[in-house]
Formats: sequence, C-alpha cells, structure tokens
Amino acid sequence: MTPDQAVTAAVSAAPGWAAMPPAERAGHLTAVADALEAARGELVALADEESHLGAPRLNGELTRTTFQLKLFAGQVREGAFYDARIDRPDPDWPTGPRPDLRRYRTAAGPVLVFAASNFPFAFSVAGGDTASAWAAGCPVVVKAHPGHPRLSRRTAEAIGGAGLPDGVFALIEGDDEGVEALRHPGLAAAAFTGSQRGGLALAKIAADRPEPIPFFGEMGSVNPAVVTPGAARARAGEIAKGYAASLTLGAGQFCTNPGILFAPAALLDGITGHLRETAGAPMLNERITTGYLSAATALGARPGVRRLVWPDDATSLAPRLLTMDLAAFEADIDAAGEECFGPLGLVVTYDRLAGVADVLADMPGQLTTSLHAEPDETGGLAELAAVLAGRSGRVLWNQWPTGVSVTHAMQHGGPYPATTAPATTSVGTAAIERFLRPVAYQGWPQDLLPPPLRDGNPWKVPQAVR
Amino acid sequence: MTPDQAVTAAVSAAPGWAAMPPAERAGHLTAVADALEAARGELVALADEESHLGAPRLNGELTRTTFQLKLFAGQVREGAFYDARIDRPDPDWPTGPRPDLRRYRTAAGPVLVFAASNFPFAFSVAGGDTASAWAAGCPVVVKAHPGHPRLSRRTAEAIGGAGLPDGVFALIEGDDEGVEALRHPGLAAAAFTGSQRGGLALAKIAADRPEPIPFFGEMGSVNPAVVTPGAARARAGEIAKGYAASLTLGAGQFCTNPGILFAPAALLDGITGHLRETAGAPMLNERITTGYLSAATALGARPGVRRLVWPDDATSLAPRLLTMDLAAFEADIDAAGEECFGPLGLVVTYDRLAGVADVLADMPGQLTTSLHAEPDETGGLAELAAVLAGRSGRVLWNQWPTGVSVTHAMQHGGPYPATTAPATTSVGTAAIERFLRPVAYQGWPQDLLPPPLRDGNPWKVPQAVR
Repeated sequence: MTPDQAVTAAVSAAPGWAAMPPAERAGHLTAVADALEAARGELVALADEESHLGAPRLNGELTRTTFQLKLFAGQVREGAFYDARIDRPDPDWPTGPRPDLRRYRTAAGPVLVFAASNFPFAFSVAGGDTASAWAAGCPVVVKAHPGHPRLSRRTAEAIGGAGLPDGVFALIEGDDEGVEALRHPGLAAAAFTGSQRGGLALAKIAADRPEPIPFFGEMGSVNPAVVTPGAARARAGEIAKGYAASLTLGAGQFCTNPGILFAPAALLDGITGHLRETAGAPMLNERITTGYLSAATALGARPGVRRLVWPDDATSLAPRLLTMDLAAFEADIDAAGEECFGPLGLVVTYDRLAGVADVLADMPGQLTTSLHAEPDETGGLAELAAVLAGRSGRVLWNQWPTGVSVTHAMQHGGPYPATTAPATTSVGTAAIERFLRPVAYQGWPQDLLPPPLRDGNPWKVPQAVR
Repeated sequence: MTPDQAVTAAVSAAPGWAAMPPAERAGHLTAVADALEAARGELVALADEESHLGAPRLNGELTRTTFQLKLFAGQVREGAFYDARIDRPDPDWPTGPRPDLRRYRTAAGPVLVFAASNFPFAFSVAGGDTASAWAAGCPVVVKAHPGHPRLSRRTAEAIGGAGLPDGVFALIEGDDEGVEALRHPGLAAAAFTGSQRGGLALAKIAADRPEPIPFFGEMGSVNPAVVTPGAARARAGEIAKGYAASLTLGAGQFCTNPGILFAPAALLDGITGHLRETAGAPMLNERITTGYLSAATALGARPGVRRLVWPDDATSLAPRLLTMDLAAFEADIDAAGEECFGPLGLVVTYDRLAGVADVLADMPGQLTTSLHAEPDETGGLAELAAVLAGRSGRVLWNQWPTGVSVTHAMQHGGPYPATTAPATTSVGTAAIERFLRPVAYQGWPQDLLPPPLRDGNPWKVPQAVR
C-alpha cells in the first residue's frame, strides 16, 4: 500500500470510526489484543530474531501491548475522554444570556505513527500510540521501523485478521514513504518514538506543511539520578546494585535509562564491581551498535573523564562506566550531558548537594529524574525536588526509571528536548488526549447532536451539566 | 521595563506563584478584577478615545473582563484543572507490580501574551489569556497592542495596585520588544490574538527557538453561515436582519464575524435592504481601516462577484455586500474565501444544498460555522452538520457567531489556520489547560509531594484515586 492509499483510506474511514458507539470501538481494540495473543508464539520468535531482546522480555512486552489495548478499550467504554460539558441556557449569566452550549472532544482525524526499534511490540505497530489513537477514534497509519520488518508485517497481518473496519489501520514501510505520509494533506497528527535527530527532523516536516499538524515526538534523555550523602552512607551497596541493573537492562536500550548518576565518590567502587560482573548483550541492530560505540568512545575522551569500567576491545558491548567531578561536568555540560544510547553510565561525583541542584537546573528537559535519599533528609530536599520536577515529566524516589508502568497516573513525557510536546504523555491512559479536538455545539436540536452531548446520554458517558 | 527584565522577573516569580495555595492565588485574581472595576470610568473613557468602540460596548467588555477574572478565580479554588490522579500500589497489576504513582498538572512557566486590538479589555492586558495563565499558576508578560497604548498602561497601573507578587505581571511595548521576549530562554509559552499574518510570523519564531515553546495563536476566520432552503422560505426577513446585524456589529471587527453566507438567492433583497440602512462606523485605527478598504476593493473586483451594496466613496466605512454563485466561489475559493476584516459580507448563492457541503469541506479551518434551518429539515442535515463540525471549533444552530459567551462549554478555537493549536480554546474555562504541564511522582514521601497529590489533600482538590 502506498502512503497516499493508506492515508486516503484513513480519511474515508475517519468519520465512521470516530462516530462509532464506544462499546463497538472498544470491542475492536479487544479483538486486536486477542488476535495478537493468538499469534504470540510466532510473534515473539520473530521479534527475538530481529531484535535480540530475548523471549522472556519480549513475552512480557507483548503482554504489556495486549494489556494496553484492553486498558484503552476500557477507557473508550467509560467515555470520560469525551470531556462532555453541557451548559444549560442561563438568562442571568453575568455577561448576557447564556445560550445552550455543549462541548466535547472528538477524534482529531487520521494519525501517523512512527514505530520505535527498542520496543518491537509496545512502541511499534500495535503499541501505545496506535492503541491510544484508535481509542480516541482516529484511524492509524503505522510507518514500520526497519529494525524489525518481518515482525511488523506479521503484526499487521494479525491486526488484519481482527476485523477492523476498512481504512482504520495500514502499515507502510520506508523512510521516504514515512515522510510522504507525514506530508499528506489528509493527516491530522503524528506520533514518534525514537532518536532526537530523527524526531526533530520529522517535527520540522510536520511544522512546515501547508497545514501544520501536531507532532508528538518522544526522543529520550539521560534521566539523571541523584544519590544524597545520607543514602550513600546508609545503602551504598543496594544503590550500586540497583543502578548497575537499571543501566544494563535491555542492553541499556531504554529511553528511561539512567545514563547519569550524581553521587558521592564513595559509590564508585560498588558500581564498578557490579558492572564488571555484568555480561554484555547484543544490541538491537548494527546501526545502533555503531552509534553507541562511537558515542561511548567520544564521551570517554572528554576532558575530566576517567574510565572505570572499559573493555579493552573497542567493539565490546560489555557495560562501561565513566566518572568525572561536578565541576568538570558543569564545564562540559553540553557534550557530557548528551544521551549515549546503550550500556554506559557516567557517575558525576559531588561534594556539595546544593551544587547538584544548580547543575540540574541547567540541563535540558528529561523524561525522568530520580532521587535516592533517606527519610530523615526530606526536610532539606524541597528545593532539589522542585528542580527535578521542573526538568522532567516523572520524578522517582528511591526507585530506578526503567520499567514504565502503564497506568492512569503515568506520565511519559517531559520538557524539550525529551519530547516535542511537554504537555502530553505517550504512556498511560492520558495518552489518548493527544488525538482529540474539542467542538462546541450552540443551540442544536437533539437529533443532530453527537450522542455524548444529548440529554438522553445514549452512550452513558460522564457529562458535566451546569 | 525591558523584555529581558520582564521575563527574568517572571522566571523568579514562577515557582512561588505556581505553588501558592489556590485560595490565595484566586484572591489575587479577584483583587485585579476589583482594581479594574474601581478604575472603570477612566478605563472606559481611555478605551473609547483609542478604539472608537463606544462606551456601551466597552462597558460591557470590561464587565466581561472582570467576570473572566472571577470565573478563573473560581476555577482555581475548585482545583479540577490540577487533574490530580493517584494510583495506589498494586502488586497484581497485569504488567507487573504497580508503584505508588501520582500525577498532576502544574504551571508550565512564564507566559507571554500578545494583546489584540479589537478587544481592548477582554483580549488585551488583563484579558482572557492573562487570566487563564495566571489561574494555571503562570506569571504573565503582556506585549501591549499599539492600538491602545494609554489604555494598556493605565490597565497595567491598575493591576500594579492590586498587590500581585513581584514578577507575576509585566507590560512591555513595541514589536521588537515582543519578539525579544518571545525568544527569551525563560519563557514557557505564548498566546496571541490577531491577524493571520502576525500570528504565523510569531508562531514561526516560537518554533525556531533553540528550545521551541507552545504558541497558542487565534487568528480569526470568515465563519461561514449556511441558510437552508426551508429556513429561507420560512424566515427570510428574520435571517436577513440577523445577518446584517451580526455582520456590522462593532464595525465588523470580530474574529467571529460571519463574512460569508451560503444562501438561496431569495435572501439577497432583504440583506441588501438592511445593510443600506446601516450606518458606517469608525474602525479601530488607520492601519486596520486601510487594510479593510484595500481587501474590500480587491474582493469586489474578483471574477463572478456582483456588488449589491457598495458606497460610491472608496473610503467609506458604510457596510458593503457582495454576491457570487457557488460555482464562481468554488472556482476562486482561495481569494474569495479569505477573511476581510470589517463590515463586508459575501453572499454565495446556491441551488443545491449538497453542493454547499462539498465546498465547505474544502475550505480552511474556521473558528465558527453556523446553520440556519427548520426543525423539520433535521433528517437531511446530518452530513452537512458533520462537515461544519469538522471544519470549525464551534457550530451554531439558528444563531449568529458574534458574541462569544464565557462559559465552561465554550470552544473558541478551530482547525488551522483559524488557530495554530486546534486542540485548545482561548475563551471559556478550558482555556486554562493551555498553560499546564503534567508531572508524575513515583514513590515519594508525603511531605515532599505537591499538596494536590498528598493523601491528606490539604487544598481539597478533586483527586482520582485508583
């Protein structure tokens, strides 16, 4: 299918999909989840061949993916996302008689999803962006990631067997084809998960269209974690072990990977020990491997950087650990603070915790920040906590950022350049809000109102009547 | 005050203003409303001198402005905009143990407001953008509109006497100064009401910053209205009168002005009669007058256009009326469909209502669309209604779009190029959502959580606990 065919079909399908009763649209999302579940064995095997992530992780990821589809199906049935508001006429409204005014949020229109490489299920063909756009009532065109082409096609085939209405889903392949789809006049929005370089280039194309469209790009970050002196004293061993595990999970290929740790120097020995004992793992593909090794080599050669764990073989994928002090980091913040996608950690040692807050305030936007501290320290941490919350979409206390729970209160986003849309999330039920557009009806007869705005409330959605 | 001083002071004020207890921040909004009310006589007199809009309209607009401030104060007290979500830990969550996760929306940071000329109170210094940004917890820097400099300064003086914390408000003047502020690294978002040309130029500057920021531009539209054959037969007189009144209200200087009417030819005589009887009124300023007369002259000379009401004096501000048939309009849609800001109406006559839907579907995004029809016609209007809702932010039934009620269900926005942000509104309580940013807290101790996310709920905001 060409990009034009895919988007044109999505345009045709859009009104019917948006106006479908919630129970029916929810049923389609569940049917896709069931179809993926039925093909589990084959899908996981293909994913492992193409991504090297291993069957246990990939089985868990597929479970997350079908769970996401069912969670969004539940959101559709509930209907709170319509945000239905009904203002009854009010002749005494202070600014003049208030008309009968009803507002809801409806589907924005066809959505283009750029699949990610590092989550071949959860952020790919039938991943969170697709599920949330479908839930909002938007047809979806997915641009497959070239890292797992056979899995992408097999996933699309499973979706194809689930009985979705024509035009509600299509898979396209190729970078040029992705750009062609992004420029298609029928498109209403696009979502992306991947590198900063790719995301910013596509965001510019979306902004430079004759009719610009929202572009929801999630581009990763270094996810700084801070260990207080008290925590280092009380739990050095546990923290070192936890850091090493989070850093090397999935070969370090998570956008929430804690690439930089601000800690007292006392933690260095423990982390070094754990990372020396951690075996390397193959990365997703050749391009990512090459990019990682080149970035690691460059970072290892920055001024003030010491190599604590550093394989002799320049092509080894065994974990690497660097350290520098806070002053050196601050002096080289642009280069030293850049994301190095892979199993490489940089421990920035500090003497004075207040200095860490100052440096963090100058760092670019992050998906997450973490603080490891002791309960008796909270009195002195308010300012640091505010800096962390100001620079990121999610802040963690005595936990590591890898492993993003799919829940109602999850926020997977953050200030630029972690994302291109800091007011939104790409994980959790609030992800649906990206693909909605409000419309108000003033004085309309009941039978021409959309069902969520009718007095009889046929879809039983929450209505705020005032 | 220089732009740098203004934004720097806003950056300093931001944390305290955002973290202020709702009752206290609401009190400040009310105090500003009271200060404006206390200066009413002087403010209205200045506004009339500088805008020529007349004391009755300006008194009403000031009432709307103080009402808006109080309405947003009520929203702050209620606290629903925090969207506080608390997910309790759940060891049995399908994708693995769910942590304690709490998400709310907090202030995005300092906001720059570009004031409009045509609403010297309601969309200017203390207008809806300022009120909604303050309500969200954002300090505001207003770039004054050069159309009413003395009123802007006097309004700022009144605000200055209301006791806001330092840095929460500043007024700057000058186009270059506005651009300088827009480029300031401390800025988090900008809002604009005005011309498409000005809005798009500023939107580009916001997007091209090293750290791009959201730009909420409301740029107006032609607001097509459609009269069905049934309505034309049943209520030609009433509709012609209503159209003429809405078209010439405030000298046609509303972004919701119904510039284009799709109607059976039978309506032409009535509208012509009413407009011949309507006197011209001075426009806001010389630049707007010149722009209007030049656009009117150009539109009057387009192919297929007939001049029904057209003063002999080319500089007259008396209302003008043009007509053309649907085929001619469709053939020249880009030029004929462009906004002409002032008291000029274009009636596009049609034979077949279905043809109107096709043409509307090809028109650019609109703030509003209106449909005038009879109750017994609703059975055949579903498709047309869907086209209208698809092309605009607000659809009206047997009403005219001028006069935007400030309520909970109002939507004042629409698809590009009516606005640069179709998912948002600049009027009504939902306007506050533009200036918020979600943050999630994972596993935090109670005393370091923001008050809206604490178990004790000290601010008594709505919390969704799951």
